[in-house]
Amino acid sequence: MSDPVRRFYDHAHQIFDLSQAQQALEWDQQVLMPSGGVEQRAHQLSALAAAVHDRVADPAYGDLIAELEASADPAGPLRDDLREARRAHDRAVKIPRRLVEARAEACSLAQAAWEEARPASDFAAFRPHLERVLELTGELADAAGGAHRYDALLDDFEPGMTEAQLRLVFDDLKGRLVPLLEALRGAPRRPDETLLARRFPVAGQQQFCRQVIGDMGFDWNRGRLDVSAHPFTSGTMHDVRLTTRYLEDCLPSAVFGAIHEGGHGLYEQGLDPARYRDPAGQPGSMGLHESQSRLWENLIGRSRAFWAHYYGPLQAACPGVLDGVAPDAFYRAVNAVTPSLVRVEADEVTYNLHIILRFDLESDLLAGRIAARDLPGRWRAGMKQYLGLEPADDRLGVLQDIHWAAGLIGYFPTYALGNLYAAQFMEQMRRDLPDLDPRLARGELGVVKAWLNRNIHRHGRSWPAQELCRRVTGAALSAEPLMRHLRAKCAEVYGL
Amino acid sequence: MSDPVRRFYDHAHQIFDLSQAQQALEWDQQVLMPSGGVEQRAHQLSALAAAVHDRVADPAYGDLIAELEASADPAGPLRDDLREARRAHDRAVKIPRRLVEARAEACSLAQAAWEEARPASDFAAFRPHLERVLELTGELADAAGGAHRYDALLDDFEPGMTEAQLRLVFDDLKGRLVPLLEALRGAPRRPDETLLARRFPVAGQQQFCRQVIGDMGFDWNRGRLDVSAHPFTSGTMHDVRLTTRYLEDCLPSAVFGAIHEGGHGLYEQGLDPARYRDPAGQPGSMGLHESQSRLWENLIGRSRAFWAHYYGPLQAACPGVLDGVAPDAFYRAVNAVTPSLVRVEADEVTYNLHIILRFDLESDLLAGRIAARDLPGRWRAGMKQYLGLEPADDRLGVLQDIHWAAGLIGYFPTYALGNLYAAQFMEQMRRDLPDLDPRLARGELGVVKAWLNRNIHRHGRSWPAQELCRRVTGAALSAEPLMRHLRAKCAEVYGL
Repeated sequence: MSDPVRRFYDHAHQIFDLSQAQQALEWDQQVLMPSGGVEQRAHQLSALAAAVHDRVADPAYGDLIAELEASADPAGPLRDDLREARRAHDRAVKIPRRLVEARAEACSLAQAAWEEARPASDFAAFRPHLERVLELTGELADAAGGAHRYDALLDDFEPGMTEAQLRLVFDDLKGRLVPLLEALRGAPRRPDETLLARRFPVAGQQQFCRQVIGDMGFDWNRGRLDVSAHPFTSGTMHDVRLTTRYLEDCLPSAVFGAIHEGGHGLYEQGLDPARYRDPAGQPGSMGLHESQSRLWENLIGRSRAFWAHYYGPLQAACPGVLDGVAPDAFYRAVNAVTPSLVRVEADEVTYNLHIILRFDLESDLLAGRIAARDLPGRWRAGMKQYLGLEPADDRLGVLQDIHWAAGLIGYFPTYALGNLYAAQFMEQMRRDLPDLDPRLARGELGVVKAWLNRNIHRHGRSWPAQELCRRVTGAALSAEPLMRHLRAKCAEVYGL
Repeated sequence: MSDPVRRFYDHAHQIFDLSQAQQALEWDQQVLMPSGGVEQRAHQLSALAAAVHDRVADPAYGDLIAELEASADPAGPLRDDLREARRAHDRAVKIPRRLVEARAEACSLAQAAWEEARPASDFAAFRPHLERVLELTGELADAAGGAHRYDALLDDFEPGMTEAQLRLVFDDLKGRLVPLLEALRGAPRRPDETLLARRFPVAGQQQFCRQVIGDMGFDWNRGRLDVSAHPFTSGTMHDVRLTTRYLEDCLPSAVFGAIHEGGHGLYEQGLDPARYRDPAGQPGSMGLHESQSRLWENLIGRSRAFWAHYYGPLQAACPGVLDGVAPDAFYRAVNAVTPSLVRVEADEVTYNLHIILRFDLESDLLAGRIAARDLPGRWRAGMKQYLGLEPADDRLGVLQDIHWAAGLIGYFPTYALGNLYAAQFMEQMRRDLPDLDPRLARGELGVVKAWLNRNIHRHGRSWPAQELCRRVTGAALSAEPLMRHLRAKCAEVYGL
């Protein structure tokens, strides 16, 4: 490698390594940090954010990128890396370091405040923290520029996506999901969901979750599974950490949470090991990331073929709990569609409506149409409108997610995009692997991992997400595959 | 605060916060990181070390320090902070960033290699890592300058101390300890140590360790106790993490290890909370730090008064194990003096000889009189000479400590200095608290913490360690208090 090329990669790798250090400290904060350490950790995260920002915005880095861009015909991977480095650099130079530090510190404190406020359903205690995060996030969006504040934020998570595009996608989706939900109300039969609320011992749930994640192909020498208030995945490649949460009277919470995070984890472990620290060797958009978790959680984890194999191991892990429950009844229970209050436990049909509510609120907040104090009321009204439910308290309402506390505004839409990508990838996987179901029914989850490794994971950011979708599936992203999947599932489970 | 003052503290705090982030990642590596994550973590630690170095060596920081130094009569704490900042800055500007990065990465990899090599007693596998660390540490010492390589390294741990001074202190100590050890060989009675090798259930040991550390005054809202291969303490003030290790057939390992680390932990939690991120608000020398751990471990934790209270709780935590063992027999067992192979489990008399051996080897290594390949042989010869023992393998010999892998060369002497400081502080504490023993015998450990908080912890780096010693005890550091303590203890336990 020529000297400027080596210097470019050294610099880019330092940025990457410091970002990973940030993630490791955030993991620590959510999993095991002593409660008193909150402010001290906020200082550390703020200092790290500033160190990352300094390196991304470093004028010498900008010069190096420009020098390499100008040189004739850079080879493939370098071109991709320069494109990603340029995007990050151009954005960073517009954002003052002071703002980066202040926002990192505010988000760290807000997350700790959320951890306390949520169980107490105390929105008032959380509100000043949220206001601070919103204020600084608005400043960030303004500094980054763009036609619309929301677009500037989206760009961090789903490069190239805009609020206007999202609104089209979501209006379309809403227009299809609401009638489907209506139709289910008059369905000839309904699954019995109460069997998922029996007492499943936590130790048995843990054993089962570890078994499934291991079978998915998660490498335990390069990862961990722990417990946190809000399930998440942290780290990459050789050190990937998943969390879930165990509720004795709600089996799906841990099981589908763990499979979901396992999907994220496989993406991180499945990147090209020679490229994972390079700017374009990292995971694509967050929508793509969510496609991996949602594909595993819903399209594999809630499939009949999956449970044909795993119902036995689940019964073995939690002896006696499911005695007398036929496999078909269990399969139908995990696929019940019931409007509910909590997004992470929502079924496949109503899930996207939870997302659309959050998108509406974020958009209104950033445009100044509403303020933080309006959120609890607006939340209740939106839930009523979309799902016909109202939370009794903010714990099950506006306080349920950590995202806004963490400064992740503009992130929720990627969950819905993930659902769309996942369904479209799944149709292609089924075309490529005609014997998928019999293999799943034998517990051969590795075949799914191998397909995803080859078609998605290894490519990192070589192409924008929508381009990768076209290359893998031969078609632009569309809501059709998801709707086909949902209609077929509902027909089977509800006898529509 | 005037603007340059505010900018000075902002900059100093960033340095501190990034250093704390480093410590948190090192803790994670030793306590729970997946085994595959070693190289990835080494990159992170290297990037962080570079970020810290950049900020310490930043010319703008140097200018700011100079500007404030020149202004008339800076108030007390600022003067101390400027002195410490100046020391760190002047050192950093002499050391190339490349060396800092390379050394951080080499140390991270060497620690992981040590973790594998130690149980396998495989010095050959560890040697190339150690050679790399020694090479880079030699370069570091040369870059930092000074009359003697060893002095340049000492300066990081015990500012102002020199190899020549240490040699005087250690020759003196050796000259007193060896005859004492001789005398014990002909002692009229010997404690029965075998009772400490009975089977103490790990759960009971854990419970007892947590109880003692809690009673010492360790604040669990601002700290944790975990397990690692080599006990250590990490973090400060609001997030202090201790580790120990539990061996079923060796009670002292966990108990005195935990009390030792608890002593370090109380120092960190006991700093001035308004000053702990300031350059002079941080703990004094490592010798002072070790005085805190050794005071608790030996002068409190092995005292008759301590066990008058804690023998009961220990028996309750490990039911039946000590049936029929009189309190006096137990007290004498934990104070047995027996030359042994492992430093961290050594008694108070032989401990310093372990240190002197390491000092000899480090000094010879840095002067080029020996090389890494000579270490196992030189280790065995030294053990034979000082303690009359030879390790059967390197696991119990040259591989027993993590320090050299971690780049901590020049650190061991601070343990012996800690023993000297501890004994001298303890004599003063007894003068100040004439009723100390009866209070200890009632389990009132808080009285010790309060004295240390007031006399040692709160002062941070306001004075150099030797000056603090003079202020607290009215005398210069001397070997007399330690020797008085050891002679009295041996007289009592061995009937000399």
